Amino acid sequence: MSLIAALDPPEGVDGVGWCVNLISSLGNVPKGFKVGLPLVVREGVRGLKDVVSVMSAELVIADLKLADIGYVMSLVTKAVASAGVNTVIAHAFVGTEGALSELSRTCSELGIKLVLVAFMSHPGAGRVMKKAFSDLLSIVKEVGAWGAVLPATMPEVVRAGREYLGSSVKIMAPGVGAQGAEPGDALCAGADYEIVGRLITRAEDPLKAAVEVVRKQGERVRECRGL
Amino acid sequence: MSLIAALDPPEGVDGVGWCVNLISSLGNVPKGFKVGLPLVVREGVRGLKDVVSVMSAELVIADLKLADIGYVMSLVTKAVASAGVNTVIAHAFVGTEGALSELSRTCSELGIKLVLVAFMSHPGAGRVMKKAFSDLLSIVKEVGAWGAVLPATMPEVVRAGREYLGSSVKIMAPGVGAQGAEPGDALCAGADYEIVGRLITRAEDPLKAAVEVVRKQGERVRECRGL
Repeated sequence: MSLIAALDPPEGVDGVGWCVNLISSLGNVPKGFKVGLPLVVREGVRGLKDVVSVMSAELVIADLKLADIGYVMSLVTKAVASAGVNTVIAHAFVGTEGALSELSRTCSELGIKLVLVAFMSHPGAGRVMKKAFSDLLSIVKEVGAWGAVLPATMPEVVRAGREYLGSSVKIMAPGVGAQGAEPGDALCAGADYEIVGRLITRAEDPLKAAVEVVRKQGERVRECRGL
Repeated sequence: MSLIAALDPPEGVDGVGWCVNLISSLGNVPKGFKVGLPLVVREGVRGLKDVVSVMSAELVIADLKLADIGYVMSLVTKAVASAGVNTVIAHAFVGTEGALSELSRTCSELGIKLVLVAFMSHPGAGRVMKKAFSDLLSIVKEVGAWGAVLPATMPEVVRAGREYLGSSVKIMAPGVGAQGAEPGDALCAGADYEIVGRLITRAEDPLKAAVEVVRKQGERVRECRGL
């Protein structure tokens, strides 16, 4: 149970309807669902609530990649929490004082899991984040975040993250499928969850695609652990 | 005409109504209005459209501090552009390839001004952004951004930014008022616009407060330029 389905509706469709259909199709196969800023901006908190109301997965994640002062990130977190979200993603790079310390307090008060981006998967991410990587990881630790986001496309980064963060911080890895990583690659490198979007959501049969991802994850993990 | 009013509705109020009232009160005193993620998340693109429809200012800014891959930032930008926004704020630190290069193309196609955050004003911002500052400024240049965000609370950072970026890139400086900078401080350091929120929006008479900010800006600029 290491699959998180990323629900990013294509342009021009009814975002809420598209998400609700997918969530119903996928049932209990994903451990969690992740919605992003495009959906939230298009539909607002009311639309988000309609989407979240049909989810029964353990993790209900708002991936807004918050990167503002603490006051603003807290306001947004309160808004998405009111829609039933239980996990929020923010950027480690904004630092603690006046930013993530405050957000972390808000999350604790609301019972929200805080997950911090410590590296990204696109080619340009390295430019600034590579030099900052050790600072970003130490911010994740200092803030006491529940989890960190590290790219499945860079298993060596996931491995370094796991080593630094220890076993108590969850690692979520996006980049499986469309961006090139294979199911299970990041799990073998130490991630707890792999985030999969288009490979599942754009498949003709999303449930079948999701089951196939989970099967491949299991196969790959048994292989890399020599079982 | 260097004032941008930041419209951040307090919790628990009708966000659209609160913004519309303020915009009407302030008339043509601000050169632009800036709305943030809390409003957009609460009200969605439909609420944003209602707010934007009553603005007659030159700059209509969505300050979502975008910090994602290019595809996601572009989707969000298209959504807010459809509501009438003409300026979008994103983070320089996500880098160019796969991120800001793509967003920049989307902005050009839509006739949207792209403004990149190159430093922030809260105490924890220094941790990562200080070391990354020269990279962040060079990303602003490479992307050909219309403007950059630099904190009014750190005039030396504004000055360094102006020196590096030259005169063709606009500089917007938040942090005036509640965060401690005085009106005109950032203008004297080389900024084109000062972003003012609570000092105006929480005043008993917002128009009077805005006029007073503009008066102080003029006074301070005449002083620092020795006029």
